[in-house]
Amino acid sequence: MLILLTNDDGIRAPGIAAALKVLREIGEVVVIAPETVQSATGHGVTLTTPLMTQPVQVDDQTVGTAVEGRPADCVKLAINQLMPRRPDLVVSGINSGANTGINVIYSGTVAAAIEAAFLGLPSIALSLLMDKDLPDWDHAAKLSLDSVKKLLAHGVKPGEVMSVNIPSLRSGELPKGTRVVRQCCKSWSDEYEKRLDPRGRVYFWNSSEFRLQTDENDTDVAALRDGYVTITPLQFDLTRHDRLSSLKASIES
Amino acid sequence: MLILLTNDDGIRAPGIAAALKVLREIGEVVVIAPETVQSATGHGVTLTTPLMTQPVQVDDQTVGTAVEGRPADCVKLAINQLMPRRPDLVVSGINSGANTGINVIYSGTVAAAIEAAFLGLPSIALSLLMDKDLPDWDHAAKLSLDSVKKLLAHGVKPGEVMSVNIPSLRSGELPKGTRVVRQCCKSWSDEYEKRLDPRGRVYFWNSSEFRLQTDENDTDVAALRDGYVTITPLQFDLTRHDRLSSLKASIES
Repeated sequence: MLILLTNDDGIRAPGIAAALKVLREIGEVVVIAPETVQSATGHGVTLTTPLMTQPVQVDDQTVGTAVEGRPADCVKLAINQLMPRRPDLVVSGINSGANTGINVIYSGTVAAAIEAAFLGLPSIALSLLMDKDLPDWDHAAKLSLDSVKKLLAHGVKPGEVMSVNIPSLRSGELPKGTRVVRQCCKSWSDEYEKRLDPRGRVYFWNSSEFRLQTDENDTDVAALRDGYVTITPLQFDLTRHDRLSSLKASIES
Repeated sequence: MLILLTNDDGIRAPGIAAALKVLREIGEVVVIAPETVQSATGHGVTLTTPLMTQPVQVDDQTVGTAVEGRPADCVKLAINQLMPRRPDLVVSGINSGANTGINVIYSGTVAAAIEAAFLGLPSIALSLLMDKDLPDWDHAAKLSLDSVKKLLAHGVKPGEVMSVNIPSLRSGELPKGTRVVRQCCKSWSDEYEKRLDPRGRVYFWNSSEFRLQTDENDTDVAALRDGYVTITPLQFDLTRHDRLSSLKASIES
């Protein structure tokens, strides 16, 4: 099995190195990832500037390619130009931070996986809930690999995206289990702090805290908060199909 | 009616000025938009750097606020800090370029509208298909206003996003009608050109042409190609609900 591994934290992030180590157990892994941190860049793509590339030593066994672009660029370029052949699986992560709830739509990690699915490949996004301590990436990677194996045994079809979130655990501590859950779509309340720069210009800091709280217990946010590994199947068809017919009836001319 | 107007082409783009002019007919319009061009930035948000702001004269009647951030940042900041009260409607556009098919997920214009919906407001994204000639923005804005009025008459609920695409038309030329259509999800084939910089570093240009071709005639791509105004209701729940139960059965533990 040929695996394309990418991420949004950049090719030098600890999460991608940890993922590389465990994914080698199940296939040949090619690493093509952003040169710089691309967190919360969403599904951006680069169309009007060139994508610079350079080889980067990811660990003692693997030289990857760093791309000065977004996560989705890495996937496009990998498949079109850089991979020896079309990969059998695309994995994105392990992201430093959970991708649950509304973060799913901001996430570069998820965008890379969705891009791969859009290009007709099966893909899996991996994300780790962070707390204040430094995480045990190797432990998170082992748990991620368990989920990848379960998903591959179940079958991930071309064009399908599976998003896996790993709870925050001490070394050796096990999750409570695995939950297949929907994305929490609960509305969010932002917080900003207003300040003045030394020249009197107004600026704002986003000071929201992403708290994992919800009363919707069948969601990714709730299950991850409760210590489960979460799996959410995702799509890239943004159409609200349930609204098509009433709109058609009242608006078409 | 209080309307927040934003875009992804930047506060000085002709499309937002044209939209401002026509939206004044139906409400009070506050313009809060990116300082710089944010095309194809997708649903990025700014969490780790400050959002600088400055007043910008958008036209002879309106001073807007330019935000050095992404389209979704503009919406968040507008609602949380800059608007006199919560707007009754958020409009994003008019974008220079169609947002149909896969472009829906790359689009900053759509991301701003989705952000507004996520924050519990009704929102409408407006985009104009470009051809080689300079567009008649005022004509496109009049057609956009027609669609906005139709949508408001039908009802756009809090949390709903409607995406409108205007075909490429000469001045005074009318669209064939309006079609309510789903997002085309047909796979895409990228093209990249490989080059060497003067120092021998490898880089790539995305050389794909976004051609409006599909054989799926019930989609946004086909209807826009055929000269119709298209309306697509969008969502921000990326869960593939149809895959939840089989995954649950085989994976949960």
